[in-house]
Amino acid sequence: MKIIIVGATGTLGKHVTNALAKEHEVIKAGSKSGDITLDITSPASIESFFKQTGVFDALISITGKGHFGPLATMTDADFRIGIDSKLMGQINLVLIGQHYINPKGSFTLTSGILSEDPIVLGANLSAVNGAIEAFVRAAAIELNNNVRINAISPGVVEDSPGFFPYFQGHIPVTMERVTQAYIKSALGALTGQVIKVF
Amino acid sequence: MKIIIVGATGTLGKHVTNALAKEHEVIKAGSKSGDITLDITSPASIESFFKQTGVFDALISITGKGHFGPLATMTDADFRIGIDSKLMGQINLVLIGQHYINPKGSFTLTSGILSEDPIVLGANLSAVNGAIEAFVRAAAIELNNNVRINAISPGVVEDSPGFFPYFQGHIPVTMERVTQAYIKSALGALTGQVIKVF
Ligand SMILES: NC(=O)c1ccc[n+]([C@@H]2O[C@H](COP(=O)([O-])OP(=O)(O)OC[C@H]3O[C@@H](n4cnc5c(N)ncnc54)[C@H](OP(=O)(O)O)[C@@H]3O)[C@@H](O)[C@H]2O)c1
Ligand SMILES: NC(=O)c1ccc[n+]([C@@H]2O[C@H](COP(=O)([O-])OP(=O)(O)OC[C@H]3O[C@@H](n4cnc5c(N)ncnc54)[C@H](OP(=O)(O)O)[C@@H]3O)[C@@H](O)[C@H]2O)c1
Repeated sequence: MKIIIVGATGTLGKHVTNALAKEHEVIKAGSKSGDITLDITSPASIESFFKQTGVFDALISITGKGHFGPLATMTDADFRIGIDSKLMGQINLVLIGQHYINPKGSFTLTSGILSEDPIVLGANLSAVNGAIEAFVRAAAIELNNNVRINAISPGVVEDSPGFFPYFQGHIPVTMERVTQAYIKSALGALTGQVIKVF
Repeated sequence: MKIIIVGATGTLGKHVTNALAKEHEVIKAGSKSGDITLDITSPASIESFFKQTGVFDALISITGKGHFGPLATMTDADFRIGIDSKLMGQINLVLIGQHYINPKGSFTLTSGILSEDPIVLGANLSAVNGAIEAFVRAAAIELNNNVRINAISPGVVEDSPGFFPYFQGHIPVTMERVTQAYIKSALGALTGQVIKVF
């Protein structure tokens, strides 16, 4: 299978990449790293990216930034960091990628626990994650040629100890569980699902 | 109580306005209609709006456009219609309005059934509604001075028969039930909730 992983060098992405590269043709992508670079915040960059990858069987997106900060001082510009990167970046990978994906292919996006279990400073990421989860439910009923789509919603992961102080009482999830969720989505048969890893 | 209703003249808004105007000071707002006009897609317009309303006790937002169309041809620009209007318009009413709301005041936003029960052509509104619902859960744990926030998620309403062909098998909800949900949010004590009316 030809699998594109956007965010292949990230904290989560490198585990998923290592697991899938054993048996599949993996194209690693990032803004500065990987086999082919792209900037997910630019639809033109995404279009040019798929022209270079050509048709593919699975796209796994494990990327996207959000704004982390207090609601009391949050501005439109702050909020749009998550909208333009983690939300529209991933949505545009699907809107544009649907024209390059093979029949029976799959899209796997990344949301996160904050959609349903919020933390202080996390309102932007909560909203973005909630949008991604609702989007995959909706896109699943419209994608053509049996193409599937799911979202993985990880809790804070064990490899991100810098985030632990903001996630009091959260039990960090193992990289193994997170990795298997991406594999379940890409190599299994689910569609329109939010696969929770927490 | 001094209650601002944005979208006061709309299909849903006029019922909520009629119900609340009997016992409260209601400020009706819209882009072309109402006591004071504003354009929710412009943060500057929202800021100037609150300068005119002054402090208030409750803000009810029953407004916001989304893009309705096939996923197969959807573009970044299409998707941003809902992002800029129904999503960022409502979020900015909160981000800016939090600096004008009285202690123990409340924000009530509008999402909709498509966040969890999608229809063909509705992917943009699904994502926007999902974002709003996750946002209210997150904002509720950060708002100061006991200010509350909820979202109302209506199914297709009986006064919008033009939408019925797109909502096959959905049972339209009565304007009475929808109106009471807004009243429950604004005059009750709930916070961080999505009040489903379907
Ligand atoms: N870490 C956690 O505990 C956790 C928990 C739940 C959810 N998540 C979510 O999981 C996703 C990945 O998180 P992470 O912690 O693995 O992040 P990370 O370590 O910062 O990795 C981000 C990856 O995305 C790539 N990237 C960054 N900006 C890009 C852009 N504009 N265009 C294309 N690629 C770009 C990076 O490569 P380059 O440097 O080459 O750009 C890198 O491979 C995020 O959506 C995050 O919200 C993380
Ligand atoms: N109708 C349904 O069945 C249904 C079901 C579920 C959810 N909803 C949601 O409920 C909300 C209201 O729907 P509706 O059917 O009542 O809509 P509507 O009849 O089109 O009313 C929209 C209201 O918003 C105001 N408005 C429009 N653009 C504005 C802007 N840029 N800035 C400020 N105000 C603006 C309009 O006043 P002006 O004309 O003066 O601008 C009007 O009062 C929407 O978010 C919709 O998605 C509707």
